[in-house]
Amino acid sequence: MDRAVLEDLAAASRILVDQGVFDAAGHVSMRHPERADRFLMSRSLAPELVNADDIMEFTLDCDPQDDRKPFIERFLHGGIYKKRSDVMAIAHGHSAAVIPFSLVNTPMRATYHNAAFLAAGVPVFDIRDRFGSTDIVISSAEKGAALADALADKQVLLLRAHGFVAVAPTLQSAVFRAIFTEVSARVQLQAAMLGGQMAALDEEEGRKADAVNLATVGRSWELWKKRVM
Amino acid sequence: MDRAVLEDLAAASRILVDQGVFDAAGHVSMRHPERADRFLMSRSLAPELVNADDIMEFTLDCDPQDDRKPFIERFLHGGIYKKRSDVMAIAHGHSAAVIPFSLVNTPMRATYHNAAFLAAGVPVFDIRDRFGSTDIVISSAEKGAALADALADKQVLLLRAHGFVAVAPTLQSAVFRAIFTEVSARVQLQAAMLGGQMAALDEEEGRKADAVNLATVGRSWELWKKRVM
Amino acid sequence: MDRAVLEDLAAASRILVDQGVFDAAGHVSMRHPERADRFLMSRSLAPELVNADDIMEFTLDCDPQDDRKPFIERFLHGGIYKKRSDVMAIAHGHSAAVIPFSLVNTPMRATYHNAAFLAAGVPVFDIRDRFGSTDIVISSAEKGAALADALADKQVLLLRAHGFVAVAPTLQSAVFRAIFTEVSARVQLQAAMLGGQMAALDEEEGRKADAVNLATVGRSWELWKKRVM
Amino acid sequence: MDRAVLEDLAAASRILVDQGVFDAAGHVSMRHPERADRFLMSRSLAPELVNADDIMEFTLDCDPQDDRKPFIERFLHGGIYKKRSDVMAIAHGHSAAVIPFSLVNTPMRATYHNAAFLAAGVPVFDIRDRFGSTDIVISSAEKGAALADALADKQVLLLRAHGFVAVAPTLQSAVFRAIFTEVSARVQLQAAMLGGQMAALDEEEGRKADAVNLATVGRSWELWKKRVM
Repeated sequence: MDRAVLEDLAAASRILVDQGVFDAAGHVSMRHPERADRFLMSRSLAPELVNADDIMEFTLDCDPQDDRKPFIERFLHGGIYKKRSDVMAIAHGHSAAVIPFSLVNTPMRATYHNAAFLAAGVPVFDIRDRFGSTDIVISSAEKGAALADALADKQVLLLRAHGFVAVAPTLQSAVFRAIFTEVSARVQLQAAMLGGQMAALDEEEGRKADAVNLATVGRSWELWKKRVM
Repeated sequence: MDRAVLEDLAAASRILVDQGVFDAAGHVSMRHPERADRFLMSRSLAPELVNADDIMEFTLDCDPQDDRKPFIERFLHGGIYKKRSDVMAIAHGHSAAVIPFSLVNTPMRATYHNAAFLAAGVPVFDIRDRFGSTDIVISSAEKGAALADALADKQVLLLRAHGFVAVAPTLQSAVFRAIFTEVSARVQLQAAMLGGQMAALDEEEGRKADAVNLATVGRSWELWKKRVM
Repeated sequence: MDRAVLEDLAAASRILVDQGVFDAAGHVSMRHPERADRFLMSRSLAPELVNADDIMEFTLDCDPQDDRKPFIERFLHGGIYKKRSDVMAIAHGHSAAVIPFSLVNTPMRATYHNAAFLAAGVPVFDIRDRFGSTDIVISSAEKGAALADALADKQVLLLRAHGFVAVAPTLQSAVFRAIFTEVSARVQLQAAMLGGQMAALDEEEGRKADAVNLATVGRSWELWKKRVM
Repeated sequence: MDRAVLEDLAAASRILVDQGVFDAAGHVSMRHPERADRFLMSRSLAPELVNADDIMEFTLDCDPQDDRKPFIERFLHGGIYKKRSDVMAIAHGHSAAVIPFSLVNTPMRATYHNAAFLAAGVPVFDIRDRFGSTDIVISSAEKGAALADALADKQVLLLRAHGFVAVAPTLQSAVFRAIFTEVSARVQLQAAMLGGQMAALDEEEGRKADAVNLATVGRSWELWKKRVM
């Protein structure tokens, strides 16, 4: 495989730390560029420390192709790649501004153009609904599949009392969406302080602005990557 | 043209990143110091990366004078320079504390002397009113003119679900106003947490304090510039 | 004693500064690994400056075993080690996000899996109840004992108008719990902005997720430690 | 004069920037250690840039003893030194967390032991009451005297739509009080998010805890100073 692919995936992990989306945990993956039935993801490691050599290859059933220690939550990734053939990359984190929306009844909104991908709606996955009281970890293919069901055709899913998942058609846009999920959450929390109705993007505005974002993500990506190389 | 002018404009861009007003996006422009029918603005580039060599020249119709790739949103700048002969510099960004005021019904206030320029009032431009559901981008002369109409004779305009524009009679004061639009938004959000009436600056206090700010902006500018050189 | 033990305890102190839990104050201690009737804690020093050579040894009555100047608040630590044989390490700080929960009637909740140890409940110790108006400092064995009574069998205790204590079965997990007490407090404050019921972890989820955290804390610890060495 | 005095006063200025209390503005002064009718304060300069050589000497009428450019707001300092013989140092800033309390009707409280000096009460000075609509600047002896009247015998005063003043019996404790005025404001804003009654320090607790703070401020000061040297 092209070494640059692995380096970009590792950079994505470090970018999400640098941008305040990941802390000592969080992981990002991408579908194998040449084999749609495989995906790539770091071995179990703090995201700030990930380098190209840490990337492992998995089947969509989450079987590792070498014997290093994988993340348990690879099932979250595998479940989505199996169900969503349009998804080429996935980020999963626990940023402090996003979790509140997984706990209360207020839906996330697309507060501005950078968060346009939220305008289609942001479902919440409550693991209790199908699995009762658990340790919250997406630790099996069954749980991964249930989570993928809850995501449906959306771009972002909240996990109750846990975190969020952002998916996208490219690695760069998965990183972009993870970052602006977090930023938009902060904007919405602050708008909630002011109270009253919120004139967020409607679905059509969201679709149109998202197309611009997908086309121009490279400009942000170059900057973010430069900061972590 | 004096090279120092280009260097100051580029520094303004980096200052607004360093001060937390711009992120991977945002742009600042100035009217050409010798030709009132031209303005200067960076080519399409993350604001943190802008240097003097990246500055392009545009007519007020936003026609670039060389063949590098310009920002699409140059129309926001051109629209204002055309309508407001007093405006010599413009900053446009999407800071997280300001966007909430573009979404809800609470007007921005001048919470303290550094934000005095807000006391005259801060209108909100909703692009839907004249253009329906769009991608939110100020991507044409028509949209730029509509935005300039909404700004009217004020110093700051909010763009619904998008960001803000700050204008000023000098480059240094446009930077100052962009920074304190953001800070004042944070102060007002926090005052809203406490609730009750807010004893912000009235219009006369705003006019008087703004005159002091315009006269003393150099002291802040030197510090800000030092940090990004 | 193994020098590495002292170095880890000193690192714990600097980690809690680096992670924003301690400021110019705060202290962390551990039970002596070979003598259950002794504990280890820095001499009186800003936590950012603590090194292995600054660690002192104390009896559970808080008598120092050398003549350097100890923290007055060692009584907080001694009181807990005396009453809770399961506790092997303690962190005490005053982070700005946690203190609000010591002042008002809202109980802290376990907002996500990293804060699972909060699900069993977080009591508040009001020093006034037994000691009237004081200087707030846990400055005697009697006050330390009263605080340990209030902690009971929980993992975190809030001190009214003062700060918090986190206890754990290992040094690494005491650091983890101090960090995620702070993070979870921020999450809960933000959820409170949104209003309505909060679907925090229930007690059983908390027990299960906490077991995962205790088993995997080493991955975070290595990263945190790397940043302060 | 002892050079170390000037160096400490300059360090105080840089400390308050480093600790997030001052931005590009803010000033700290101290009474002359050998002449009670003089005070020392930087020439007009961003506080981050102040060095020992920038310190000027003033009479209590604010007449400079050399011909460099002084801060206009020296009258704030002079007014207090004239009226309060117990005050040996003064800090004045505009931190974003404090200003809200100058705008609304909620009094600042002493949210924890480090903010004990607030327990005696925090008055608000509204310049409009005696001077009508102004530019907000404390630009004359008359305004300085009015401000000192509003401060009365307290340790902190809020200036409506402007900022705060903290006074103390030593330079180190003036810095301490400026820092914890800001931190306590943040704590109180967050407590306000939770709602309900707030069990802040009462006056007697405040007096007792303040005595501890004044006695132990050196430990924090050494750390803060180390960071800016």
